[in-house]
Amino acid sequence: MDLRFKRFPDEGITFPKGFKAEGVFCDIKSLGTGKGSDKGNKRDLGLLYSEVDAAVAGMFTTNQVCAAPVKIDKIRLQNKTARAVVANSGNANACTGEQGMQDADQMTAVAANLLGIDKEKVLVCSTGRIGVQMPMQNIEKGIKFAFKGLGSSAQNATNYTEAIMTSDSSFKNVAVELTISGKTVRVAGTCKGAGMIQPNMSRTGARPPATPRQLHATMLGFITTDVAIDSDILKDALEDAVAKSFNRISVDGDMSTNDTVLVLANGLADNTLITSTESTEFKQFAEALDYVCLQLALKIVHNGEGVSHFITLKLQGAETFADADAVVRSVANSALVKTSWCGGDPNWGRILDAIGYSSAHVIEEKVDLAYSLPGSKDILYVLKNGQPTPTPLEEFRKITEQKEFDLHIFLNMGNVNTLFYTADLTEEYVDFNKGE
Amino acid sequence: MDLRFKRFPDEGITFPKGFKAEGVFCDIKSLGTGKGSDKGNKRDLGLLYSEVDAAVAGMFTTNQVCAAPVKIDKIRLQNKTARAVVANSGNANACTGEQGMQDADQMTAVAANLLGIDKEKVLVCSTGRIGVQMPMQNIEKGIKFAFKGLGSSAQNATNYTEAIMTSDSSFKNVAVELTISGKTVRVAGTCKGAGMIQPNMSRTGARPPATPRQLHATMLGFITTDVAIDSDILKDALEDAVAKSFNRISVDGDMSTNDTVLVLANGLADNTLITSTESTEFKQFAEALDYVCLQLALKIVHNGEGVSHFITLKLQGAETFADADAVVRSVANSALVKTSWCGGDPNWGRILDAIGYSSAHVIEEKVDLAYSLPGSKDILYVLKNGQPTPTPLEEFRKITEQKEFDLHIFLNMGNVNTLFYTADLTEEYVDFNKGE
Repeated sequence: MDLRFKRFPDEGITFPKGFKAEGVFCDIKSLGTGKGSDKGNKRDLGLLYSEVDAAVAGMFTTNQVCAAPVKIDKIRLQNKTARAVVANSGNANACTGEQGMQDADQMTAVAANLLGIDKEKVLVCSTGRIGVQMPMQNIEKGIKFAFKGLGSSAQNATNYTEAIMTSDSSFKNVAVELTISGKTVRVAGTCKGAGMIQPNMSRTGARPPATPRQLHATMLGFITTDVAIDSDILKDALEDAVAKSFNRISVDGDMSTNDTVLVLANGLADNTLITSTESTEFKQFAEALDYVCLQLALKIVHNGEGVSHFITLKLQGAETFADADAVVRSVANSALVKTSWCGGDPNWGRILDAIGYSSAHVIEEKVDLAYSLPGSKDILYVLKNGQPTPTPLEEFRKITEQKEFDLHIFLNMGNVNTLFYTADLTEEYVDFNKGE
Repeated sequence: MDLRFKRFPDEGITFPKGFKAEGVFCDIKSLGTGKGSDKGNKRDLGLLYSEVDAAVAGMFTTNQVCAAPVKIDKIRLQNKTARAVVANSGNANACTGEQGMQDADQMTAVAANLLGIDKEKVLVCSTGRIGVQMPMQNIEKGIKFAFKGLGSSAQNATNYTEAIMTSDSSFKNVAVELTISGKTVRVAGTCKGAGMIQPNMSRTGARPPATPRQLHATMLGFITTDVAIDSDILKDALEDAVAKSFNRISVDGDMSTNDTVLVLANGLADNTLITSTESTEFKQFAEALDYVCLQLALKIVHNGEGVSHFITLKLQGAETFADADAVVRSVANSALVKTSWCGGDPNWGRILDAIGYSSAHVIEEKVDLAYSLPGSKDILYVLKNGQPTPTPLEEFRKITEQKEFDLHIFLNMGNVNTLFYTADLTEEYVDFNKGE
């Protein structure tokens, strides 16, 4: 890729100008379940703050069952600007009724009061257990601790990231720097998510008509940037970036009640305000935002619960996008395909089967399938016109035994292509999710 | 249940008058993969024969990728009568192109020649590996052996059942006897299937408009009866029975390329020919056929690959059948719900999440969820109006730790109800399917 920006794989969300963050431990999970508290535990409450008003955009789960913070944020985003985000792990504040709505609102009010801003400018995100009321006493303490610790260091950013992590075993950060209208602009992002991962987000949480109504595990994404951009345009940029990144992944096919991606753009880079999607400056920013979102989304799949193989589905030749999307999700979420990937098995029969039962229009005799290693131009066909090629299976196994490989699906029905990123299903996943 | 017929749980497909069967070992799998032969192995080729012309009906996978025998049978069923079925395990004869079609046809021709009947009256079913050409030399030998062994004993029926089994670890048979217009009528069935199980069959293999386009693992079902019934009426009876049985199960959410259910009714019971779906006699027969199909379908789920928990989903109050069906399939196929069942965990959050991301119209605040033990009238609510009840989780765990339990889903949106039968996802399933 020829990218017109510098990459900083280890920088967090305090990298752009004017952002402060902090993450603290306030024992959210323990209070929720009655278990004892233990200082030194993983942080569970984060606060993110912009020194000045930031244009804001968000994308939300299209699950009809959605958490209180999602409901609050959808309303708050009508303001078009925000100053802060309070986020927690350990409790999703989902299926918590009127009390949950009050608690989410109260979290923003406590943060706003400390920061000396209007609560309408504070957003809120939660992830963790469903159906448990929020331990508000501890959360309020946590917000106060986090406020006191707010800073712009890399450690501050890391603390925030730790605070949103649940079953994640790796920190997921990425940042870039580029020049827009002669000014240095930075875009940074962090996210969490490892299981219940097949986001399908839209601006309003309403289901987009053109995409299938699909599945959930909470993923939360936070992007900070000091670019100066009109908030309506920012929404377009985020929607497009999410469509190519977070909405193109699946770990286990389950779509969460809490999936949220927020971007705050505070304008402190001092570039000329971007007001048109047709401008060169917009395209420069959008390329950076796309990159940040995609890198974060890929990290989620790589670090998915129990994941031992990462597979990129490269589909070509569907009649419509809906068909293309249906085929890749059908393959990505098939238990039999996923378990064959776990074993490093190039089992194309299960793949063709999953293509056939998808809602897409396909013709068995037209389907080609091929494998390749990432970045390699050597594409090895396993199926042509619906029939196996003479290449021995051992040749394919050399590819599918690798930790990462590409599966090419040629439907030969039309000219719509798509990419999708997914993983195998392992015994570790089952063991992790079967509970105590 | 107040059933108006006698049940014979151990009788096989030779129980009704005039049916003969046999199953033999002819080394289908080994020839396909180049492994050595070993006499005494599991039987892999079965032959079923009716002494007289039988009215016939069939239901077939709606997967767009479907096997050669399915394609042949769909055409043959236009004849309305059949005399024999040749079936094999070890090779699905799927994705085998023109050669596969010739081989499937040849299987019927060889059987027809031995039996002295027209090959148009012979049906064919295959299950096993996809994409491997049929080892026709061995198969032809096998058909000859099976022909020589044809008989009406219980052992003959068992041999046939063994011949169609793949990863099944139990024999699946059921038979009933009832009186219709003063005559003794018998209905018997056998089936196979353990993985790649979420059949959604239709008469023609065309997708039924009212049901979702769903998933596949091969299941094959064979029903014999000596009832005298018009073949058009028999088709109605089978379609209705399959809609309430085989099309209401899912082990792993994958729909096969080969799913087939056939019923042969040879009229030797000598009852007055059933010609109307409005007649009492039709209703008597349909009740027996429904019972046989449902018992076989339940056996498939109970004996599913790696299954340790059997769950009946009892859904009430959907707006439409499509909604009801979407909700139960979404819950039944959620990786997170299935793994929680594996752990005996009454995790209603994952269930509500899966309901929310289904394509059905649901309102979180209207959903009630409850658990009960099979046959018990003690229904324990875990969720009312989208909110958890005060009952401690330990109470629900007493139910969900059992091998078999019912999950009640009340959408409170309309008046459509449905049942669905499914199972957990275990480490054993992953281990079994990840290959060598």
